[in-house]
Amino acid sequence: MSELIEKAKQAQQASKQLAILTTEEKNRALKQIADQLLVERTYLIEENQKDIEAGQRAGISQTLLDRLLLTDERVQAMAEGVEQVIALDDPIGDQIDEFTRPNGLNIRQVRVPLGVIGMIYEARPNVTVDASVLCLKSGNAVLLRGSSSALHSNKALVSVIHRGLEAANVIPKDAVQLLEDTSRETAKEMFKLNDYLDVLIPRGGANLIQSVVKEASVPVLETGVGNCHVYIDESADPEMAVAIAVNAKTQRPSVCNAAETILVHSAWAKEHVSKLIEELRIKEVQIAGDEQIKAVAPFVKPADESDWGTEYLDLQVAMKIVNSVDEAIAHIDRYGSKHSEAIVSETDANVRKFLTNVDATTVYHNASTRFTDGFEFGFGAEIGISTQKLHARGPMGLRALTSSKYVVHGTGQIKK
Amino acid sequence: MSELIEKAKQAQQASKQLAILTTEEKNRALKQIADQLLVERTYLIEENQKDIEAGQRAGISQTLLDRLLLTDERVQAMAEGVEQVIALDDPIGDQIDEFTRPNGLNIRQVRVPLGVIGMIYEARPNVTVDASVLCLKSGNAVLLRGSSSALHSNKALVSVIHRGLEAANVIPKDAVQLLEDTSRETAKEMFKLNDYLDVLIPRGGANLIQSVVKEASVPVLETGVGNCHVYIDESADPEMAVAIAVNAKTQRPSVCNAAETILVHSAWAKEHVSKLIEELRIKEVQIAGDEQIKAVAPFVKPADESDWGTEYLDLQVAMKIVNSVDEAIAHIDRYGSKHSEAIVSETDANVRKFLTNVDATTVYHNASTRFTDGFEFGFGAEIGISTQKLHARGPMGLRALTSSKYVVHGTGQIKK
Repeated sequence: MSELIEKAKQAQQASKQLAILTTEEKNRALKQIADQLLVERTYLIEENQKDIEAGQRAGISQTLLDRLLLTDERVQAMAEGVEQVIALDDPIGDQIDEFTRPNGLNIRQVRVPLGVIGMIYEARPNVTVDASVLCLKSGNAVLLRGSSSALHSNKALVSVIHRGLEAANVIPKDAVQLLEDTSRETAKEMFKLNDYLDVLIPRGGANLIQSVVKEASVPVLETGVGNCHVYIDESADPEMAVAIAVNAKTQRPSVCNAAETILVHSAWAKEHVSKLIEELRIKEVQIAGDEQIKAVAPFVKPADESDWGTEYLDLQVAMKIVNSVDEAIAHIDRYGSKHSEAIVSETDANVRKFLTNVDATTVYHNASTRFTDGFEFGFGAEIGISTQKLHARGPMGLRALTSSKYVVHGTGQIKK
Repeated sequence: MSELIEKAKQAQQASKQLAILTTEEKNRALKQIADQLLVERTYLIEENQKDIEAGQRAGISQTLLDRLLLTDERVQAMAEGVEQVIALDDPIGDQIDEFTRPNGLNIRQVRVPLGVIGMIYEARPNVTVDASVLCLKSGNAVLLRGSSSALHSNKALVSVIHRGLEAANVIPKDAVQLLEDTSRETAKEMFKLNDYLDVLIPRGGANLIQSVVKEASVPVLETGVGNCHVYIDESADPEMAVAIAVNAKTQRPSVCNAAETILVHSAWAKEHVSKLIEELRIKEVQIAGDEQIKAVAPFVKPADESDWGTEYLDLQVAMKIVNSVDEAIAHIDRYGSKHSEAIVSETDANVRKFLTNVDATTVYHNASTRFTDGFEFGFGAEIGISTQKLHARGPMGLRALTSSKYVVHGTGQIKK
């Protein structure tokens, strides 16, 4: 039996025991994981060093090396992350719905775990712990498939998780499985493992996610790109509009909920667009603008078609003048990625139209797009931001890792 | 541009207009469809006759011919079905959740349509109307891919739907599209049309569904097989247990929520299993039994391994004696398809254990498995019974055809 099949089977078996544990039992096991991470931090850092050295020899970028690196502080942060998950409400067993039918059948819909979650991710060792504890808390087993460049770190982290689980002796350690075979072929096999996996969650760049979406027969929770817009309407408060647009663009440009295009109503632009451009330049943002923007600020690069569709993920922004909320909505409909879209406006009718007609996971009135985030939404955790329409849309907390089950009580009812 | 791409694009375009219509507007259009079906019933029956004659020439079975046939009565039933959908609550716009964050952001989660639904089904013309009106009511456009053997009927039905939509002049007629190219290659292209389709719903036999699940990159709502069990516990009321087991097996054996195996506690069996066997035989059920069943009823066929895993969909049943609720749960875990599972018992602890530990869309205490059904659950409609764990599980009504969107109101919040 291949490593993949063996570990998937073990995970499935373990998921059955895990599914029926109480919150207190699961939390006890998680607490041991947090403690074990701290106890073994020297070991973790030593093992991580092997990946770092191999990465340096292979000449990977400083950014990637930094993502890969474990330090005393980072291991401590991981352990604190586990404590935070312990503090979260357990969604399992929650009653979603209840009704009694005319024939007397009482039907309750309750949350249950998904079963086994396949997690596919890149060289970020923190995901190994983060994903494991979120899955365990929600009663799911997990099959982890990380990057070969983080294999020493991941093996060490999973062995520490296993020792924590063994010490607690509640959740079977088979509930957390790490695939050591990181070949492309095995990943492809994993995409098709419908008999053992209930869902796949890819976490990483657009290429990784798209390859999972295209090739998997196991259902996928798709997280993805954000080509987000801020539309400044005619009636927008000038100070608020500038603050929101600058924040959405610059507060953390590398993330999916950062704005990539600012659409400005022509009437507002007349008086205020220079101020907006000035503030963006203070933050060192490079601007690609349409002709009307260039007329005000000749130094900006002319925007071409590709600018409207690009997720820069950098200190770059596209700017365009529009003549109505309808034109803004049409632009977003054409170029947006249905992630996060904001309108700054004091005109109720325009706000209502924008919020209703723009199709996105999250639409904002007078707030920055940067709030599309599980923590900002108060979920206490984030599995990712779903950009698909099935199952979960927008920031995903623990609930996104659950399914449901109907529990029906009768008194002998049979179907006529 | 191929027919598939052209129609998918048209559907996507129409879905945007449809998504923001009011319930009253959608109902007005549906009413016209109901009326148009009645007005054009002669035309529908004539066109259907072409499929029937071709089917007869091709020698298809009487059962399939009957499924394909449209009669005056059946068209009338279709129109009544549309009226029933009009009467259903519109899920679109429903508020699922609302909360205000410490920073003052007000976050509402509301139901929105999925967008464009790809429906893939076999030679049942009623699905053409049924699926179309359920999609429209929930604000979705639909791309229908039916069977080539029903093509005349489907074309006629969709043209009638189009004339109804044109008369109402609210929903663009492009919101309902029928693929006339029913080749296997085009179906495969449809499975991968992620840019235009938000979900695929296959309706039909296990082979059809499995091929969609295996090959599609568009998210699938999987409906599927039901290898359902009735477990009769030691303390079961004898009359109730016999009635439930016989009902679950015989009330309509061809459907997925019919029971396929009856598990009987040995202590209950001693006194009552002969009565159960007698009642099953009165209903002409063929029994495959384990050795202990055979000891009581020597005429039954000996059950082999394959009987436990078979969805007979017929007047056949497998019977097995078990010695505890745990043994029943283990059998169901091994052979069941996680559809509908029932326990008949008067022992609270056993009931609780069964309902908690058995993993299925629906678990029953003292009721027949035959109630797993959108109508029996009071949803007023049924898209199918989901056997997957993502998005929807169990009977799916209109809500299963919706997604959600977060609508956030601020007063200038930016992320620190």
